[in-house]
Amino acid sequence: MSDNSGAIFEQGKQSIKIPIPIYIRASASIVGTKEGAGPFGDLYDIVGIDDKFGCDTWEEAESTLQKEALQTAIGKAGLKNDDIRFLFAGDLLGQSIASSFGLGGFHIPLMGMYGACSTCGLSLSAATVMIAGGMAKYAACVTSSHFASAEKEFRYPLAYGNQRPLSSTWTVTGSGAFVVSSEKSDKDRAMITGLTIGKIVDYGIKDSMNMGACMAPSAADTIYQHLQDFERKPEDYDKIVTGDLGTVGKKALIDLLSQKGVDISSVHMDCGIEIYDKSQDAHAGGSGCGCSAVTLSAYILKQIEEGKWKHVLFVPTGALLSKTSFNEGQSIPGIAHAVELVSCRG
Amino acid sequence: MSDNSGAIFEQGKQSIKIPIPIYIRASASIVGTKEGAGPFGDLYDIVGIDDKFGCDTWEEAESTLQKEALQTAIGKAGLKNDDIRFLFAGDLLGQSIASSFGLGGFHIPLMGMYGACSTCGLSLSAATVMIAGGMAKYAACVTSSHFASAEKEFRYPLAYGNQRPLSSTWTVTGSGAFVVSSEKSDKDRAMITGLTIGKIVDYGIKDSMNMGACMAPSAADTIYQHLQDFERKPEDYDKIVTGDLGTVGKKALIDLLSQKGVDISSVHMDCGIEIYDKSQDAHAGGSGCGCSAVTLSAYILKQIEEGKWKHVLFVPTGALLSKTSFNEGQSIPGIAHAVELVSCRG
Repeated sequence: MSDNSGAIFEQGKQSIKIPIPIYIRASASIVGTKEGAGPFGDLYDIVGIDDKFGCDTWEEAESTLQKEALQTAIGKAGLKNDDIRFLFAGDLLGQSIASSFGLGGFHIPLMGMYGACSTCGLSLSAATVMIAGGMAKYAACVTSSHFASAEKEFRYPLAYGNQRPLSSTWTVTGSGAFVVSSEKSDKDRAMITGLTIGKIVDYGIKDSMNMGACMAPSAADTIYQHLQDFERKPEDYDKIVTGDLGTVGKKALIDLLSQKGVDISSVHMDCGIEIYDKSQDAHAGGSGCGCSAVTLSAYILKQIEEGKWKHVLFVPTGALLSKTSFNEGQSIPGIAHAVELVSCRG
Repeated sequence: MSDNSGAIFEQGKQSIKIPIPIYIRASASIVGTKEGAGPFGDLYDIVGIDDKFGCDTWEEAESTLQKEALQTAIGKAGLKNDDIRFLFAGDLLGQSIASSFGLGGFHIPLMGMYGACSTCGLSLSAATVMIAGGMAKYAACVTSSHFASAEKEFRYPLAYGNQRPLSSTWTVTGSGAFVVSSEKSDKDRAMITGLTIGKIVDYGIKDSMNMGACMAPSAADTIYQHLQDFERKPEDYDKIVTGDLGTVGKKALIDLLSQKGVDISSVHMDCGIEIYDKSQDAHAGGSGCGCSAVTLSAYILKQIEEGKWKHVLFVPTGALLSKTSFNEGQSIPGIAHAVELVSCRG
């Protein structure tokens, strides 16, 4: 009988050192009109001409985003749908229906994920573990969010016309998809070399119109632990990129880490702050599973490919709430998962 | 540069052969009053004296189920909370709030899963991949469901007193937790030696009061593919156990497989049919993430431990719907994940 003790790739307290490099072979991003008008507008693969994407409901529109993003990513990878062994996907809607109805037509085995807006990091982590373990050659990760389906799911119907406080963020309409593999190719956009899986962190904040404050403690926890586990400093990274903290959450993150003696201010970037221009009236910034996913695909991986950044820590952040938990007076805990990205150019 | 082609443990079209045995070191089950009065009543670790488990809401009660199940399983494994490297967990509620609020206090990194009632199979699969890949020594899997929180989430408030058709199933109030490891011990309940990850299968059925019919096609698809991938016959297993098809779904499953020339009737068992006595008025049977999880912990692993069954295929089944997708007229696709269990006694 084997008595393998496993755990040979455990790194520090909650990280994993990936034993062989895992390559992001290709990726795709599809966004709505507001995102298309933003600073990264020219970088997305597809920008919708309206936010219903030819569908009857917001939920179907979001499913269509996932379908188009995945199909585009597989095509850009030079693969066929059948080549993808497993999908890792999830979204913000109750029971992840954007994924269930967007991905069924691919007939690819699916491992469903739930990490709120951290899903891009969670699904890349799970796919990396699967491939690095030698259990698949190709996998794909997909996630999405949609402003209108998210408002309906978490807050008020759009027709109600509620006022949004300045601390609120705007849920990104978009989907990002990523094809990952252990096989090196000349298309590879970046390598995944390490993971830090996040814990649920709850500071007791209850304001669903201030998600940045809810998620900042979990981002601080994961980034701090990542640096400890790998014995690194913030300056070892060209960028440490959070998902959707927005302006309020960014300030909280910097403050929380500086209380622990870690200063990330010179290398920090938040996708939620970058995705819209100030003139676009998104208040504290963008949010949603789609926010970090489309920014990774369209902008971050491009910077890495072009050699501008060589070493990036990508840390999508999720707020763990439902309208039921909110209405029952529960707090809004956060979770954040970190994926270490390295340039393929060495 | 490495040019590892990966995929060395791929088995057939959608399965994984686990390279080293992964052991289920310990497990725990906690259930409500109705389950406690059922055929397996004496086998559960904890039976509640009422279904609120000391909480103010049904959702908090479900979170308490997960918390108690996990703590009990870790204790039975002879481990401390800190020994568990990663949690794999999810549930039926929107945004998996039973897990988010039940597991935060453990401060263990969490990979959130969504597979509807297939979550027990999905989370065991993900944990097995992680451990077999050498990326953790110990992991734990948790899932739950609660009759009252599920009725509120998917159908009608209990106070409305709606009539339930005979094809409907009764959501199990219960949680099951499992500690898995690559390290052999004298406590081990069974070994995990193979996985078949399921695809979304949609036959276009739209009746949320007949979940068995919605899920049977996915169970048939996964079981058929598992047998193909490993080149086996149903008789190679002592039992092929589905999660919560109930009486209506069981008939559909047997019929669908017999159309493909596969007869599982002599070895098939469904947790949903076994968990309640006919006198308990559950109609077509039990359902929910908790159904297969508590039956695995309390009954199936006991049969394997006692040498009555040596080789079991455990196939939890999930129905992918939300109240939004249902109200928008969408179908109810299914998904099923198969976990191969082998006796540690050889």
